[in-house]
Order: sequence, then structure tokens, then C-alpha cells
Amino acid sequence: MEEELRKVRKWMQRNRVHATRLLQKLVQEGSVRGKEAAAQAIIIEKCRELGLQLDIWEIGNKTLMNHPAYCSDRKDYTGNPNVVGVLKGTGDGKSLILNGHIDVVPENNLAEWKNDPFSGFIEEGRLYGRGSTDMKGGTVALLLAMEAIIATEIQLKGDVIFQSVIEEESGGAGTLAAVLRGYRADGAIIPEPTNLKIFPKQQGSMWFRVTVKGRSAHGGTRYEGVNAIEKGILVINQLNELEKVRNSRIVDPLYKNIPIPIPINIGKIHSGDWPSSVPDICIIEGRIGVAPDEKMSAVQAELERSLQELEKKDIWFKDYPTTVEWFGGRWIPGDLDIEHPLLTTLESSYLEVMGSSPVVEASPWGTDGGVLSKIGDIPVVIFGPGVTEVAHDANEYIVLEDLFTSADIIASTILRWCEVSRSD
Amino acid sequence: MEEELRKVRKWMQRNRVHATRLLQKLVQEGSVRGKEAAAQAIIIEKCRELGLQLDIWEIGNKTLMNHPAYCSDRKDYTGNPNVVGVLKGTGDGKSLILNGHIDVVPENNLAEWKNDPFSGFIEEGRLYGRGSTDMKGGTVALLLAMEAIIATEIQLKGDVIFQSVIEEESGGAGTLAAVLRGYRADGAIIPEPTNLKIFPKQQGSMWFRVTVKGRSAHGGTRYEGVNAIEKGILVINQLNELEKVRNSRIVDPLYKNIPIPIPINIGKIHSGDWPSSVPDICIIEGRIGVAPDEKMSAVQAELERSLQELEKKDIWFKDYPTTVEWFGGRWIPGDLDIEHPLLTTLESSYLEVMGSSPVVEASPWGTDGGVLSKIGDIPVVIFGPGVTEVAHDANEYIVLEDLFTSADIIASTILRWCEVSRSD
Repeated sequence: MEEELRKVRKWMQRNRVHATRLLQKLVQEGSVRGKEAAAQAIIIEKCRELGLQLDIWEIGNKTLMNHPAYCSDRKDYTGNPNVVGVLKGTGDGKSLILNGHIDVVPENNLAEWKNDPFSGFIEEGRLYGRGSTDMKGGTVALLLAMEAIIATEIQLKGDVIFQSVIEEESGGAGTLAAVLRGYRADGAIIPEPTNLKIFPKQQGSMWFRVTVKGRSAHGGTRYEGVNAIEKGILVINQLNELEKVRNSRIVDPLYKNIPIPIPINIGKIHSGDWPSSVPDICIIEGRIGVAPDEKMSAVQAELERSLQELEKKDIWFKDYPTTVEWFGGRWIPGDLDIEHPLLTTLESSYLEVMGSSPVVEASPWGTDGGVLSKIGDIPVVIFGPGVTEVAHDANEYIVLEDLFTSADIIASTILRWCEVSRSD
Repeated sequence: MEEELRKVRKWMQRNRVHATRLLQKLVQEGSVRGKEAAAQAIIIEKCRELGLQLDIWEIGNKTLMNHPAYCSDRKDYTGNPNVVGVLKGTGDGKSLILNGHIDVVPENNLAEWKNDPFSGFIEEGRLYGRGSTDMKGGTVALLLAMEAIIATEIQLKGDVIFQSVIEEESGGAGTLAAVLRGYRADGAIIPEPTNLKIFPKQQGSMWFRVTVKGRSAHGGTRYEGVNAIEKGILVINQLNELEKVRNSRIVDPLYKNIPIPIPINIGKIHSGDWPSSVPDICIIEGRIGVAPDEKMSAVQAELERSLQELEKKDIWFKDYPTTVEWFGGRWIPGDLDIEHPLLTTLESSYLEVMGSSPVVEASPWGTDGGVLSKIGDIPVVIFGPGVTEVAHDANEYIVLEDLFTSADIIASTILRWCEVSRSD
């Protein structure tokens, strides 16, 4: 296999510029939710060029929508397809899913961006733009590895199933649709931005919406009303306390370097529509992290119970309890045994390329790995070139050198996992 | 004058149903900002019926917009006029402005309303709906008093200048336009909802917008970012402290029954657009009360200084100071001497009708009285039938009996102030 590895590496070394250009084009098509079509068109073109067996479909059928793990507030998927491209093996080898999501989160406050969020401009080895790190850079690493194997005419025994899915950022409906369409494999790699760390376990998460009541009044006699923002702040404080309690229970050593293994993020607050009025309703939305060994339903119950306890601190909540909705995003946690051969194969490839052992941790965020493993029963590991810290942030970027390194490690893992088929 | 008073009262007693119907029609035309036209059309029709000298004009000329007291973010006043109707006197009497605003605040959370906010339905002597108390009920009391005087063919010496203005709720541009158009008088009554109390002094107020910065990050690694909502809560706490400090300085006995003489109301908060992201900006809007003896500019400076002090409590604000804008609403405080003859005339009328002395206080909110007195140099008193506690609230209502009582007191005040002209 040494010979194949050398050929593949040489090919990738010579084609860095093309891979960079592909990433640039993908970033420039800012594929926020509902606008994934143009970026997927670039992926489809690339898959055709590689001669993969293409499967392009609009998700959203009844089987998907009625599935217990389906969780989305999106009504229409028309024109924004899922894409799968299969590189068929000769048989008798282990198959591998390579999964990347094409959707990106919104660019947020434009003023914080030094350049157009969708410019894809390059400076000092970094390619900037929303989606560069999360996770179009990872997807390009997958395609670069596959292209190198195809271009150097290596035959694999096992199938490689490349997936470019929508809806990861909103709860994984795209990957769930791929599982329900029948895609299975002996293992899967998702190159989310891990800073080249390996995450066999992933934090799951869910979105929640808390509605807090107040009583309106004229601002000049604000003492006649009850400010919903003031009560909303008590809800936020309560959620902060719940976060402390939940994290104090985490003992898994994979989390030892993570400051808050399962955070509760307050992502949105919205209250009031007139500066001179006391607002009578406050809506708080956020995300609660789920530990790899937790059940989604148990986490929901714990948060709801915690907010019910508010009535002990403030009598207002006895008469006007908060209401909790679980809406939109929902990512099942992932939990791969650290002795699993998929993990050890990836670790060996890493060691070989980098000359040192990888950092193995639990991921601080949910991924589509939860759906692949818990619903598809596929062993999953998360490993990618993106910069964890800048995902979802202004001035998001990826270090191009890390992209090429990860492609190298992934190519090596493909060759080891799927095995090279020799005609002689 | 006893004779005239008796005739006027008798007439009003017999025409209660018509006045009630007029209020109902005015409430049903929900004249929120930018939609004042239909309610003003009803006012115009009534003024024509009374034979008043009508002046109907769209405000917004350069003189208004360039005036230092002008403060509005509204760009277009087309189709939503100010209305003035003058009842000319025979001369040699004191003139009186009767001022009511036609604009109402938004209905807010519809779920809190037992009925349609613009139904005007009546139950147990209360007429319900947005604007019933603040302050279409007061305006109807003015028109009822004027109609009674006109219908009983009483001639006054002084002019009565009835004004139905727009934009009170957003800072008084309508009344400022009337002052700049030349309307002056020896006194003015504004029947804002005072629970039949008399307010010679009025709290002024201003709107502010504070922009608070954070640093965005993925919610799963929220510790990599800085949550703008968390920093926004510190800003709210600081404003609460400022409110305490400012109110501890109020010693005017007129404020002795008011829990918070000059409140700071947090009316709006808006932050974040994705539950899984740490929000990087938080916008807080509110209203700060201004004491009758305070200068608007000094209050602005005090709030800004207070927020600058946040950097001593949290180093974040040193690098990312908040920014403060003074936008939209702005009501100059009013301050009438408690020995002024306008006030004593109103007090005598009250005593005569009610058989007891009125409660004289300082108002807990700004009114157009500030503009009339500080810009127009017109002595102003605030006195009206509405229910202070339900202004701007869901299920706003007015007690119809109070409306008729106030019309009685106002009619009596008109006769005393403007004086009856006798041909014999």
C-alpha cells in the first residue's frame, strides 16, 4: 500500500490550487438555509467529473417527516437537494461514508466582518468566509482525497459513499433523509471543524424556546406593570445554574480539556415593541448540549423541571409559569467505542502522516454523526481541518495547510479501511 | 353664570349617548402611528357640525423639522393631518387651548386582550379599547363641553382653540407643529388620563437605544465567545441603579404618592438570530423620565456617564463601550406654578362639581404640555377622565361616568376662564 499512498500524496500535492479554488467557489455561494442549490450544483459538477454514481433528490417525503428523529420547522425543500456520489468498490471490502453538510449559518452582524462574508478571499494561508471552516473546507478535503484515489487509478474493494447534505445546522434532516433512503456503511467520517482532533463522541443538542409573561403598562408608571424582560433575566439566570449542575455530572476523561462540556447557550432574546411600554412577553431561544450517554427526552424533562422551580424563587411564576417549546434544531449525540477499528485506523493514519498521536476528545457540539450512528447504526468518527473557535463567528476562516493535511490522513484512512483491490 | 352652567349641564346630561357613540367610533378607528387619518376624519366631521373655524394641515415642513425640540424618526406625514377647530369669542376674554392627541400606542400582545382591541365595546359602564383612556375619552370630553356651550347658545369672550394632534406618543411633533403654526392662548388644558387628578407638573421623558457588543461563537463552545445578552443584562442592571439614584433626588411634595417619580423603563430588547450561536450584538431600547426642573441635555449626559462607568465593573466595556442613541420619542417636562389662576380656576370648578377638593400631583409621564409650555410659553394643566393604570395596557378602558364628570368640570372651567359675553 506504500506505493499507492505515495502516488496519492504526490497527486494531491500537485492539485492544491484546484482544491483551493473549489473551496473558494463553494464559499462564494453562501448556502444559508433555503439557498443551498447553487453550492450543491458545484458539488454535483465535481461528482460528475469524478465519475461517481450520482443520487440527487429533494428531501421531505412522509417517511422522513413522520420519523421520530425528524425535527425541523422548514416547510419547503424544493430546489435544494441532497447529493450522494458513490465510488463503487470491487467488493469484499469495508464501505465508508464521507459526510459533509453544505448549509452554513447566517453571517450575523455584517459590521463585524472585515470583508464580505462570502468573498472566499485568501490571506497568509487562510481562506476566509462563512462556511469555510464549517464545513466546506472539510467537504473539499473529502473530495480531494477521493479525486486523488480516482486520478491515480487505484481500485478499492469497499464502496466510498460521499454525501453532501442540507440541514445539518438545523437538526440533521438531510443526513436523516440519506439514512432513510437506505445509505449504510461499515463506518463514516464527518470532517467537521475539529482542529484536526478526533472526536469519537459528540455532544448532542436541542433548541428550546421559553416564553415568559409579564403585564404591560405605561413606562411612566412602570410599577403598575410587570416587565417581561426582568422576568426573562430570571429565566436566563436559572438556565445558567442548570448548566452548572449538568456539567458537574460529566466525568468522561474525553471532556477533560473542555471548559463547559455541555453548554446551555442563550442565542436569542426578543421582547417589547415600544420603548415607553412595559413589555408583556419575552421570548428566549437557545441550545442545550446533550452528553453522549444522555437521552434527549431526559434532557428536555430536566430543563422543564428546572424552569418550574422558578416559582419557588419568584411567586410571579406560580401564576404565570413559563412555557417551553422544543423546536427546529435537534442533534442526537454520538458515542463510538474508543477501541473501535474505525477509530484506530484513523489514529494510525494520523500518526503516520503527522508523526505524533492525535488528540482524541469528545466534541463540544452536535453533528450529523448522531443520526448516522443512532438511527443508521453506523460507526462514526468526527475529524476535520476547520478551526473550531471560528465556526459560526465573524471572519470565519480555514487554514489551507490543515485542509491538505486532513485530506492526506483521510485518503490514507480510505485506503486502509476500504482496502486496495489488485487485479494481479 | 349659574344659569348658563345649569343649561350646559342639562344639555350634557341629555346627550351622553351621542358622546359615547362618538368615542366608540373613534376607538374603532385604531389610529396607531401612521394611520391617524380615519379617526381625524371623524373629528373633522364633528368640528364642522359645531361650526368651528377649521384648520387642517399635514405637518412636516422645514420650520418644524429644523426646530431644536423636534424629535421624530417619522419620514412621512402625508394623509394624516393635524386638526384645529376654533370657537371665536366676542373679544376681551382669556383664550384657552383644549388639546388632545389622536394617536394611540400599538395593541401589543393580542392574546392578552379579552376582546378585539379596537372593538369599543361597553360593559358595566366601561368602554374598552386601545385609545379609550389614552386619550380619545379625554378628547370626547372636550368636544362634549364645547358642544354643550354652542348648543345652548352661550357666547364666550375668549377664544376656545380645540386641537386634535398626531404624534404625541412619539414625542409631540403634532403639538409642536401647532405651536409653530402660531396657536397661542392664555391657558391650555390637556385631558390625558389622570384619574380626574390635576397635574400642574408633568414628568418629561426621552427614548434611548443602547447598543451592546459581544463576540459571536458556536453555542457548543460558547466560552469562546462573549454573549451580548449577558452584557446587555449588566446594562439593564446599571440602568436600574441609575433609576434609584435619580429618584432619590426627588423631593417635590407633588410626587409624594408616586412610587417611582421618574422611572427608567426597559421597553425593548433584541439580540441574536440563531439559537446555536452566541449573539454578538444586543439592542436595548427604553424611556427615561425627566423631572419637571431638569434639562433634557443634563439627563442625557447623566445616563451616558452611568453607562461609561460600566467599564469599572466589567473590563469588557473598556474595549467595547456601549453606544447610546437618543431617538424617536422626546417629551419636555411641564412645570406650572401652583398659584397660577388657570390651576385655581380648574380647582374651583372641580370643587363645585365634586363637592371636594381635587388631588393635585405631578404626572408620572410626559405629555404635549411640555411643548405647549416650554416652547409655546402657554400655562398648561393636565386633567382628564382616563384611567392612568390601563394606558398602554391590554384591555384598556375608560369609565364613562368619569368622562361625563370631566366634561362637566371642563365646561365650567371654560365658562369661568373665557367668560360669558352678554349682549344686555
